[in-house]
Amino acid sequence: MRAAVYHTIFSRRDVRGQFLPDPIPDAVLSRLLTAAHFAPSVGFMQPWSFLLVRDPAIKRRVHDAFLHANAEAALLFEEDRRDQYRQLRLQGILEAPLNLCVTCDRDRAGPVVLGRTHNKAMDVYSTVCAVQNLWLAARAEGVGVGWVSIFRASALRDILQLPPRIVPVAYLCLGYVSYFNDRPDLEAAGWRGRLPLEQLVYLDRWGETGDEATAGLRENLRRDQREAILLKAASAAAE
Amino acid sequence: MRAAVYHTIFSRRDVRGQFLPDPIPDAVLSRLLTAAHFAPSVGFMQPWSFLLVRDPAIKRRVHDAFLHANAEAALLFEEDRRDQYRQLRLQGILEAPLNLCVTCDRDRAGPVVLGRTHNKAMDVYSTVCAVQNLWLAARAEGVGVGWVSIFRASALRDILQLPPRIVPVAYLCLGYVSYFNDRPDLEAAGWRGRLPLEQLVYLDRWGETGDEATAGLRENLRRDQREAILLKAASAAAE
Repeated sequence: MRAAVYHTIFSRRDVRGQFLPDPIPDAVLSRLLTAAHFAPSVGFMQPWSFLLVRDPAIKRRVHDAFLHANAEAALLFEEDRRDQYRQLRLQGILEAPLNLCVTCDRDRAGPVVLGRTHNKAMDVYSTVCAVQNLWLAARAEGVGVGWVSIFRASALRDILQLPPRIVPVAYLCLGYVSYFNDRPDLEAAGWRGRLPLEQLVYLDRWGETGDEATAGLRENLRRDQREAILLKAASAAAE
Repeated sequence: MRAAVYHTIFSRRDVRGQFLPDPIPDAVLSRLLTAAHFAPSVGFMQPWSFLLVRDPAIKRRVHDAFLHANAEAALLFEEDRRDQYRQLRLQGILEAPLNLCVTCDRDRAGPVVLGRTHNKAMDVYSTVCAVQNLWLAARAEGVGVGWVSIFRASALRDILQLPPRIVPVAYLCLGYVSYFNDRPDLEAAGWRGRLPLEQLVYLDRWGETGDEATAGLRENLRRDQREAILLKAASAAAE
């Protein structure tokens, strides 16, 4: 069981291409949404809703909104990266058989929510936990997921007719895929590499490496990161 | 493999009590942090850091900050809920052998980040995905996790000496537990119940139920939510 969970986590990908047109059966989609619904939420408010987008006309409008925002985005990069940016594949809105907007209802449990009193963003964080649950369940089902974030929020709100209290947290493209890539697309494209995990861990206060107290842990982190990339132990046990 | 992932998702809990004092071995902690590090991130920026808190003096200061914020929080509830609120157990800061602050470095990949151009919060969302990966891996390892959010951010910043660009996204309590509860604590305490998932799904635009087009899906959602609560099929296959 443990190995299966790690295998799913390490082989999960953010999919932009290679979507197949086959629809996701209701039975599978239902399991994915149930996985999302069993995410943790602040004050048990369960602030999420799931807006399925299947209508080709609506997908087309969302795609147009992406193209508009993406043209704006390209101009924000320095000239040397701009060409590379424009060659990257950043969405599969039209190819994926299902688009899914995961939203957060900021009023779902009244104005005062247990645990949200000191950090108003906790409801949105809960919604992101639901997205990640769905993403992992999808990987275990062989369904690819891509999170598209290059939109003006107002465009999405307008197209999907979201009331003001509803925040569109994630716009996802879902579908079966011809394959899952070994590595993140952006790493394979040379955009940015994976960071060494052992350098991202501190002890007791920011910047404190812990020296001897964390030496054993860091050795483990180096080995586990290497193995996660190679998926060796995990995939043998899980498949 | 699929069943193991669902079992983990459906039996994951937000743990506040029942922590055992046993330390988490480096080998286990390393696997949990590696799971977190393999979360998706916008522009592959990997904005997270992991600040382990083991020093009892620092845990004590964090606990004091919680008590202060929690007293403020109680006053925000109407009188009839206030007493109930005060009786809820909302943290395990001192009992859990390890506290972990998961942070987001907003400058990790420079000022212009691919995919963060139109939603500045995408880096924080990525960090939440890392938290949820860690949470599920912990459940698969038999390690309990509780997310404590009742703090003034300035207090956490001060105690953990976080630079201004670093956002404390999640403060987690981790440890082995004597048992995992069947239901969320807040549901068991009568604070708030689980919502019917089939009422949270729309088709193509907000408020549109889809009628016949989603009737089969809704039937599946009702059944899957029932089974997830009972953990029947999943636990038989996974353990």
